[in-house]
Amino acid sequence: MGWARGTGQQFTPELLEVLFDEADLMASVKPGTPESRVLDGYIMASLFYEPSTRTRLSFEAAMCRLGGSVITTENAGETLEDSIRTVELYSDVIVLRHFASGSAGAAAAALGERDGDGPHTPLINAGDGPGQHPSQALLDVYTIRKELGRLDNLTVGLVGDLANGRTVRSLVYLLGKYTNIKFYFVAPDVVRMKDDIKEYLDEVGMEWEEADDLMAVASQCDVLYQTRIQKERFGDRVEDYESARGKYIIDNEVMAVLPQEACVMHPLPRVDEIAPEVDADPRAAYFRQAQNGLFIRMALLKLLLLS
Amino acid sequence: MGWARGTGQQFTPELLEVLFDEADLMASVKPGTPESRVLDGYIMASLFYEPSTRTRLSFEAAMCRLGGSVITTENAGETLEDSIRTVELYSDVIVLRHFASGSAGAAAAALGERDGDGPHTPLINAGDGPGQHPSQALLDVYTIRKELGRLDNLTVGLVGDLANGRTVRSLVYLLGKYTNIKFYFVAPDVVRMKDDIKEYLDEVGMEWEEADDLMAVASQCDVLYQTRIQKERFGDRVEDYESARGKYIIDNEVMAVLPQEACVMHPLPRVDEIAPEVDADPRAAYFRQAQNGLFIRMALLKLLLLS
Amino acid sequence: MGWARGTGQQFTPELLEVLFDEADLMASVKPGTPESRVLDGYIMASLFYEPSTRTRLSFEAAMCRLGGSVITTENAGETLEDSIRTVELYSDVIVLRHFASGSAGAAAAALGERDGDGPHTPLINAGDGPGQHPSQALLDVYTIRKELGRLDNLTVGLVGDLANGRTVRSLVYLLGKYTNIKFYFVAPDVVRMKDDIKEYLDEVGMEWEEADDLMAVASQCDVLYQTRIQKERFGDRVEDYESARGKYIIDNEVMAVLPQEACVMHPLPRVDEIAPEVDADPRAAYFRQAQNGLFIRMALLKLLLLS
Repeated sequence: MGWARGTGQQFTPELLEVLFDEADLMASVKPGTPESRVLDGYIMASLFYEPSTRTRLSFEAAMCRLGGSVITTENAGETLEDSIRTVELYSDVIVLRHFASGSAGAAAAALGERDGDGPHTPLINAGDGPGQHPSQALLDVYTIRKELGRLDNLTVGLVGDLANGRTVRSLVYLLGKYTNIKFYFVAPDVVRMKDDIKEYLDEVGMEWEEADDLMAVASQCDVLYQTRIQKERFGDRVEDYESARGKYIIDNEVMAVLPQEACVMHPLPRVDEIAPEVDADPRAAYFRQAQNGLFIRMALLKLLLLS
Repeated sequence: MGWARGTGQQFTPELLEVLFDEADLMASVKPGTPESRVLDGYIMASLFYEPSTRTRLSFEAAMCRLGGSVITTENAGETLEDSIRTVELYSDVIVLRHFASGSAGAAAAALGERDGDGPHTPLINAGDGPGQHPSQALLDVYTIRKELGRLDNLTVGLVGDLANGRTVRSLVYLLGKYTNIKFYFVAPDVVRMKDDIKEYLDEVGMEWEEADDLMAVASQCDVLYQTRIQKERFGDRVEDYESARGKYIIDNEVMAVLPQEACVMHPLPRVDEIAPEVDADPRAAYFRQAQNGLFIRMALLKLLLLS
Repeated sequence: MGWARGTGQQFTPELLEVLFDEADLMASVKPGTPESRVLDGYIMASLFYEPSTRTRLSFEAAMCRLGGSVITTENAGETLEDSIRTVELYSDVIVLRHFASGSAGAAAAALGERDGDGPHTPLINAGDGPGQHPSQALLDVYTIRKELGRLDNLTVGLVGDLANGRTVRSLVYLLGKYTNIKFYFVAPDVVRMKDDIKEYLDEVGMEWEEADDLMAVASQCDVLYQTRIQKERFGDRVEDYESARGKYIIDNEVMAVLPQEACVMHPLPRVDEIAPEVDADPRAAYFRQAQNGLFIRMALLKLLLLS
């Protein structure tokens, strides 16, 4: 299935509907039922070259929920290609998280090389450096669909570190497949959205605007997507980091202007960019979003292994 | 089930009998039988903020023995509350080990908060700092019942680090529910039993006595419970540590005065506070005690998930 | 089953045939079939005192492929004997990897000690320091049988670090059970094959020869077994290491003189002692060898637990 690998750009809305419908079914899989054993005897190799507790956990839980097993590994001091070719021999599907952009593509090529043109062990890209994070984008889009009931005619505010966040980059690419979406980019100066994404939106004919005023943006959004400002991006510039991270906080003041039908999303973990007081608001969708990650990953694994 | 959380003080002898009877059944669960699949499709999240090989292993083995799956995680750089709320979404039961006293209560509150008053993912406290270690106390009491055939009318000698050992603290609380138990506390000066436990025993009307002479105590005990003296409690005072750790060793000399029907217990791992020569003595119950840990944890998981 | 423990010297060719026939069957076990559930409810404890990604992964995958579960542990700050006795209580089979030669024997003794002469939890030696690595030797011999169709009348070239590689040492011992095998030892001076192995081959009446010229050796070999030169064996002598590691590289030039029916093996991971250009050659057997490791370990676990 082409949509397991690469950058997320290869998905069509039709293919996404298949996945999302499967994810809907996954939400009702109960222990002890035949549905909970469909991946009985299958092995997922979880290959994480950089830590990512949440992504790893939800993939492992997804596999277990469907009766499969998980083996976990880390860098064995050899090339990525050799690791992938070996892990392939011990498993039915590989989930790869790597620190270097493009690793998922290189790994997929190593698999293909070995097997010639025939089918081979599917590889799921669980994030490769600042590159892409397609399974996160899938669960994000699925969450919007579930929260709002539609994926067209949306106003989406992206807030925080838009330069380095692979999450928001993958999300914009994926939402670019739909119709009439307007984006607001609300980011501190040092971590503004990069030009490639803006050019992509221009190409697909979608509106985007950079904005400074979180309150003004929030009052117009259907989706307010917050991200974490990561200290390590700022090097020695500790003051820059402190001002950047404190600049756009979602708290009850922001929630007061957010439309009633809107939702607040965040890939988690958060530091303090969403105040805990917001958690009780029904529009706070970020924990539901994390749970959707489980359902999407169950659906991905099932479709990849059984179809 | 209330007895999964908190401090162990909420258990009644009646509730404990239910658990112990279930644990008795667990000892005969064999691979490949329907009994070994009752937790088929259930997921336990093993959340250890400090290492504890033995406790973690026995919980994981317990889950596997009943057909369930395990996902393992560690600190993800967010608050305990956010971690718990996320892990909850991916699992059916959470086992938490934390370095800070009271963490289990805070974690349970986070679960409750999210779900309102309804039922939520059960949380098992696998030790929170110097606080409590209720599942260890459960297996300890179960071991006494199995070794001696009774839980009333006992003389129990607690030996070693009584100030910092959460194991012995939880055990005393739990034994305080029964009748006519006399405690001897045999500890080096720097790690004597703390006042809160003594006051608790006074309240429930149980006898206790501090003693120096391990031989004299051993000659009167039904249960001789040894613990490890941990070096890190002594900081720079290396000499104090050396004299404390060498002071109370259980060896064949002590075994010679211990009554024939008595048993020797230890939560393990041991350093040298029980001489290896004791292992062959039928009264050496510490490896049976470790195995009882498996049965108690199987019973806990089964009762929590299926009832 | 005696062949699970110890040094690999206790195997007979007849016993190996039983194992290899079982391994042949393991290659066709498919998810969702009854064959994939024969170890349903069994627990393997994976006890690695030194890292070994590949060995650990293939044992864990083997257990999962047959429906079993895995618990993983590491040094808990107690004696190996106490660890083994405890892990035994939580599992049905133990896989031990240790840095110290002879550990597997000591561990097996601890199990036997506890249980007297009766049967006890089987222990598989997954490598003990510079000592032995019997399960690797088993998969190596199995690979030769599969690649060449025979285990007698062979010329085997062992290349690289022959002094420290437990892999090649165990392999020579095992091949010593067969008939008419000639060995070439091709190693840099500082890591030449040790005398005990040479004496063993003299005893069993097998020919061996030390050689410098890899091309000359390759032109006569049925099996060319390359190993990695490990930097840590050379201490401060960085230049010695650099010259040793660069001395014997298998590349297309070597492949050009290797007989058409021969095969190239390597326990992996490799650094650069086999050039990637060789991978596409049908005689490059090292990834098939790694997969045979899965089948051999499935067979080992099945025979140990069910017979």
